[in-house]
Amino acid sequence: MGKLRYAMVGGGRDSFIGGVHRKAMALDGNMELVAGAFSSSPEKALASGRDLGLSDARNHGCWQDLLDDELRRPAAERIDFVSIVTPNHMHYPVARAFVDAGINVVCDKPLVHSSEQAQDLVAAAAKSGVVFAVTYNYTGYPLVRHARDMVSSGQLGDIRKIIVEYNQGWLSTLLEASGNKQADWRTDPARSGIAGCIGDIGSHAENLAATITGLEIDSLCADLTTFVPGRQLDDDGNLLLRYRNGARGILISTQIAIGCENDLRIRIFGSQGSLTWHQEEPNRLLHAAIDAPPRLLTRACPWLCPAAVKATRLPTGHPEAFFEAFANIYAGAAEAILARREGRATAALEADFPTLADGARGVRFIEKTVESARSAAKWTPF
Amino acid sequence: MGKLRYAMVGGGRDSFIGGVHRKAMALDGNMELVAGAFSSSPEKALASGRDLGLSDARNHGCWQDLLDDELRRPAAERIDFVSIVTPNHMHYPVARAFVDAGINVVCDKPLVHSSEQAQDLVAAAAKSGVVFAVTYNYTGYPLVRHARDMVSSGQLGDIRKIIVEYNQGWLSTLLEASGNKQADWRTDPARSGIAGCIGDIGSHAENLAATITGLEIDSLCADLTTFVPGRQLDDDGNLLLRYRNGARGILISTQIAIGCENDLRIRIFGSQGSLTWHQEEPNRLLHAAIDAPPRLLTRACPWLCPAAVKATRLPTGHPEAFFEAFANIYAGAAEAILARREGRATAALEADFPTLADGARGVRFIEKTVESARSAAKWTPF
Amino acid sequence: MGKLRYAMVGGGRDSFIGGVHRKAMALDGNMELVAGAFSSSPEKALASGRDLGLSDARNHGCWQDLLDDELRRPAAERIDFVSIVTPNHMHYPVARAFVDAGINVVCDKPLVHSSEQAQDLVAAAAKSGVVFAVTYNYTGYPLVRHARDMVSSGQLGDIRKIIVEYNQGWLSTLLEASGNKQADWRTDPARSGIAGCIGDIGSHAENLAATITGLEIDSLCADLTTFVPGRQLDDDGNLLLRYRNGARGILISTQIAIGCENDLRIRIFGSQGSLTWHQEEPNRLLHAAIDAPPRLLTRACPWLCPAAVKATRLPTGHPEAFFEAFANIYAGAAEAILARREGRATAALEADFPTLADGARGVRFIEKTVESARSAAKWTPF
Amino acid sequence: MGKLRYAMVGGGRDSFIGGVHRKAMALDGNMELVAGAFSSSPEKALASGRDLGLSDARNHGCWQDLLDDELRRPAAERIDFVSIVTPNHMHYPVARAFVDAGINVVCDKPLVHSSEQAQDLVAAAAKSGVVFAVTYNYTGYPLVRHARDMVSSGQLGDIRKIIVEYNQGWLSTLLEASGNKQADWRTDPARSGIAGCIGDIGSHAENLAATITGLEIDSLCADLTTFVPGRQLDDDGNLLLRYRNGARGILISTQIAIGCENDLRIRIFGSQGSLTWHQEEPNRLLHAAIDAPPRLLTRACPWLCPAAVKATRLPTGHPEAFFEAFANIYAGAAEAILARREGRATAALEADFPTLADGARGVRFIEKTVESARSAAKWTPF
Repeated sequence: MGKLRYAMVGGGRDSFIGGVHRKAMALDGNMELVAGAFSSSPEKALASGRDLGLSDARNHGCWQDLLDDELRRPAAERIDFVSIVTPNHMHYPVARAFVDAGINVVCDKPLVHSSEQAQDLVAAAAKSGVVFAVTYNYTGYPLVRHARDMVSSGQLGDIRKIIVEYNQGWLSTLLEASGNKQADWRTDPARSGIAGCIGDIGSHAENLAATITGLEIDSLCADLTTFVPGRQLDDDGNLLLRYRNGARGILISTQIAIGCENDLRIRIFGSQGSLTWHQEEPNRLLHAAIDAPPRLLTRACPWLCPAAVKATRLPTGHPEAFFEAFANIYAGAAEAILARREGRATAALEADFPTLADGARGVRFIEKTVESARSAAKWTPF
Repeated sequence: MGKLRYAMVGGGRDSFIGGVHRKAMALDGNMELVAGAFSSSPEKALASGRDLGLSDARNHGCWQDLLDDELRRPAAERIDFVSIVTPNHMHYPVARAFVDAGINVVCDKPLVHSSEQAQDLVAAAAKSGVVFAVTYNYTGYPLVRHARDMVSSGQLGDIRKIIVEYNQGWLSTLLEASGNKQADWRTDPARSGIAGCIGDIGSHAENLAATITGLEIDSLCADLTTFVPGRQLDDDGNLLLRYRNGARGILISTQIAIGCENDLRIRIFGSQGSLTWHQEEPNRLLHAAIDAPPRLLTRACPWLCPAAVKATRLPTGHPEAFFEAFANIYAGAAEAILARREGRATAALEADFPTLADGARGVRFIEKTVESARSAAKWTPF
Repeated sequence: MGKLRYAMVGGGRDSFIGGVHRKAMALDGNMELVAGAFSSSPEKALASGRDLGLSDARNHGCWQDLLDDELRRPAAERIDFVSIVTPNHMHYPVARAFVDAGINVVCDKPLVHSSEQAQDLVAAAAKSGVVFAVTYNYTGYPLVRHARDMVSSGQLGDIRKIIVEYNQGWLSTLLEASGNKQADWRTDPARSGIAGCIGDIGSHAENLAATITGLEIDSLCADLTTFVPGRQLDDDGNLLLRYRNGARGILISTQIAIGCENDLRIRIFGSQGSLTWHQEEPNRLLHAAIDAPPRLLTRACPWLCPAAVKATRLPTGHPEAFFEAFANIYAGAAEAILARREGRATAALEADFPTLADGARGVRFIEKTVESARSAAKWTPF
Repeated sequence: MGKLRYAMVGGGRDSFIGGVHRKAMALDGNMELVAGAFSSSPEKALASGRDLGLSDARNHGCWQDLLDDELRRPAAERIDFVSIVTPNHMHYPVARAFVDAGINVVCDKPLVHSSEQAQDLVAAAAKSGVVFAVTYNYTGYPLVRHARDMVSSGQLGDIRKIIVEYNQGWLSTLLEASGNKQADWRTDPARSGIAGCIGDIGSHAENLAATITGLEIDSLCADLTTFVPGRQLDDDGNLLLRYRNGARGILISTQIAIGCENDLRIRIFGSQGSLTWHQEEPNRLLHAAIDAPPRLLTRACPWLCPAAVKATRLPTGHPEAFFEAFANIYAGAAEAILARREGRATAALEADFPTLADGARGVRFIEKTVESARSAAKWTPF
């Protein structure tokens, strides 16, 4: 079939996440970086592209030039998709332009700054028919997919309670004042949007819970705090959630929790059993049924669902981790992109990736959380 | 010095907690059961006392007889304290009577059914001068005491966030309908009070957080739920907390969490570090300072504070657990009782136990939680 | 029935293990210390007995006086058993004298200094008919008993491999030179016997493996080392084992392993499954069957065998630990002592404790290990 | 610099390890597969190369054709190295031929079947000057490199004891009889050599211990067993080790340990501290110093040595795992290959990979282990 060709927007020198996306795409040997516009600074963009071995012809100083150039190329040369890994505020204009041009998009999260923008993208994508994936990368873990399967197949019974947390400690001081690029844009409303921590990582927690359980939030009650003096956005958030099926939830998201590294974890309790999963030990899923001792499911053990099996590359005990989960998001998008190219529908297990709908819901989650935090009423409808 | 003599009210046949208290008191060999009124049923009371080897003269069919008999005895024979381990609704009348009689009291938690009763007890105890301990047993763990020391000595900096949880799964079905005695009274408003889960175990979580951090709740926002059809009281509770110093808290308390046994755990985050402790692995305390790798403190390791050292009986690696923590509450009360008997003040490390003030605050916590859960306003002042 | 009366030999001031035995016996409220000879120093013996509240009449300066006094007393007063907790070298003479006098014995381990002494005790006990328990305390843990049941009932299939370890770090320096009493006698051949670490803790590892699996050692190959300069006995031992059924074993025992506290652990692999247990987290037993995900059994969970259920005092999640396991050894001995008093046989679940046969085999294990370590031949027959 | 071009020998359809090597090489985007001979079956070889998108010109039916073709090509096209991932018995002839041709080699482990072959390769490589790496992949983990640094810099003091284990359970039944390709060649003496389990995974354990500690084995005492009836080679091995500095070791290697997946772990005890590392949780390293609480070092935490920092791609808490460690071996070899191409020496942190000397010592370890297992004398000199 040949490799899928892609361009990247953002992700140049100094970027953390750009390299992560590229490694994730490289892992399976079936995607090839052929073009890029790696920075909002033309000089940095070009230098970054040269670092990555791009030819001058396909290394651009701005994303508009990249898009124009691609549209001039014959289909046999043109990129199969664009990967957008800029700071948040650039997601919307770039994504919209590529969508309108009929080019498939993989975009980092949170999707955009407002539900208005999100709905606009949803409509545009529906019109142009492109594949659009949002890299909520944590749902690419095999055992997250197995958890999803266990819930949807009823193995936990009715879901009663979700406790989802994303705890980090790296912003426990005013790191943005030190010139740290990652801290800088994430705590700047102009680039990060109306939310800090809750947008940066709380949105991952929301997506993880929604992906596994499929439950819809009915209303929420949020408390957002900025602990570090001088910071412009929230660095800590705690939410009570009520789901439409009657379940209750707690969502904790913080970046001032010293000792926590990238502590995304979820516990799901149903009337027949529970699940516990922790991103920092992603190869284990603890399942407690109501009538048996807790059992430990491991990635690639013989008891997993097809979607989990498909998302694994190594036998049990040979740990897989962050890059592989990230690669799984791209792999799912790639299947949809191939299917679109070949004019066919995706089959049951194909195209397993977070969609625009996930992205749009994530934006709404951020908006509603901020609205609730500013409200005196306990419950803000979702 | 001779052994401290005690009587027990409640805790007869079928009781779970009575035997726990007695074993805790027996452990160090310095307390002796000499009298009792072990049940509200006179027959069961007397039979239980005979099981325990009490002489008929000091084995009573009701607590009033016990009290009367004690008051008739000479001081050399009279009990040094009474241990009250009845269902909650009997705490108040029994405790009040013994307090008024000048007899020291150790009473199970939650203390009483209302703040009015609690304040009444506080006043009565102040008047009679008795020692009054409330068996919030989990604060008797050595590493809880060390955590308290680390916070009060500033090793964590300013406390910013507390996550405290108490998760159980044993009430995930309507166990009270099966004749289970423990489930029966705990889910009955007449005996348990206005709250189910939040009173039974949420109050332990409140006490643990308060004991370690000393922080005072400013306001709270609660969501209480009854998941199991047919149940009369809450079996699940989630709270957002705001403390007077600006810290935020989450308190989770549930009895429908399948797979959780007695999962009381706390995480405390300050500006200089964090602590993590879990009751089911009580011999470990994880401390993460802002500028060093996390370090694992173990019970009886050479780096503990005097209060923790004092609360331990075995060298490192020889695990201590629930009974020993419970015994530590009694040991602290015993020191105060001896000091009272000898007419002297307690020294710095003596008399380390939860007091009437803890008990009264715990009752207020239950009341305010229920009030908040019924309110539409987000924050209920504490 | 009244309480069982006991005397203690050894265990006075400065002793660690004496207090442990007394607390273990006190826990359930059915044993009473009535006499003692707590030290080889008459002054220390008497002072220790006074500390413990013994009357002068039953507080003795030497164990011979204690024995003489007991034999003079009427049966209604006489002790039901003696607990011997002296340094190792005194076990034999004391035990032999009490056995000959027809008094039941509970003796600390390792039993005696030589197989000759052990066989002599076996014969003497058979003759006098006394109950004789050896406090290999770690086999008192409920989950050790469940592990034993799983093996004997065939749930692991044929046992193929045992890895048993007992790692401590407290003797990683020449602590005996500092006046530490525990280090002093344990590293002194006159009081500890021919072995240091392997006798002190390696013998616990041997007993744990034998108790759970029932397998008999066919031959062994040992390497004993003294790492700390100036030490008189081994402080580290590693053994290869061959069992009569063809199973293989590794036994590791060390006291120079910095970072290890009381790290006794065992893994047992059979043709149908495996078990993993760790003394420092004694409330968990991991069972991996060949055809299912590993499952976590916890103390007091509903899936345990009667012997484990009987050995537990608290519900799941309320951790039990070292003292309770120790108490279970005494409880088992007590059942046998009562049965003897009443002239009846013990029933199926009664009298569950390590016997003289365990003690004698443990002595042989020490002898054979030392013999092997000194030998050039690979395998020393057991 | 352009990408490094490589060819692969072995690793075709049905191979597990070939794909692992390719993904590891793809991760960082700087190596390119340009040629191959993927199987000893020409048909399967060619089909495999087509699967991987190779042009017919560089897709060969046998490795000799591949080598001939490469030697005919101009330097600008020729491969920079060959990756040999065949079953063990083909390592020697293939590696020898490429070495003689002056082509750099990365070869899987165990290196060859005999020390004679190993020494021959050492001499040939010395003569031709090629870079030769052996993929003992587990030493590529960042925290293994940090452990090595801690030992070599004296942070553990004098090393006294090593416990290294590699436990798997997948061969607990006669899997080779079922047509499983991985089981088939690994249990076949013709392809696997004189050893089964001890060669396949025991050799990794040997290498891990040697890499971290640098200690040299003085003598060893082995017990090898075949538990599964019908199996031709050992499936279980236990060794006692003596090191030249006086340290003692235990090496456990088994493939019949049900419940163990890929359980490679090591504990190292020195006079000043200890380290514990487990391959299945590779992002953690526990360090216990003699005078401080144990501390938990995590991959990418701020306290690591340069070699560990260099070997990491993601921030703390974003777990890295097996592929990344594997990629680090290739990355180290790539640095040496580039340095050779450019005619310069490698700098301090460059060229960090297992060498021919590691490979040769590993072969000797297998030979000596088998020799010892067959011997009656306790200690076989190394």
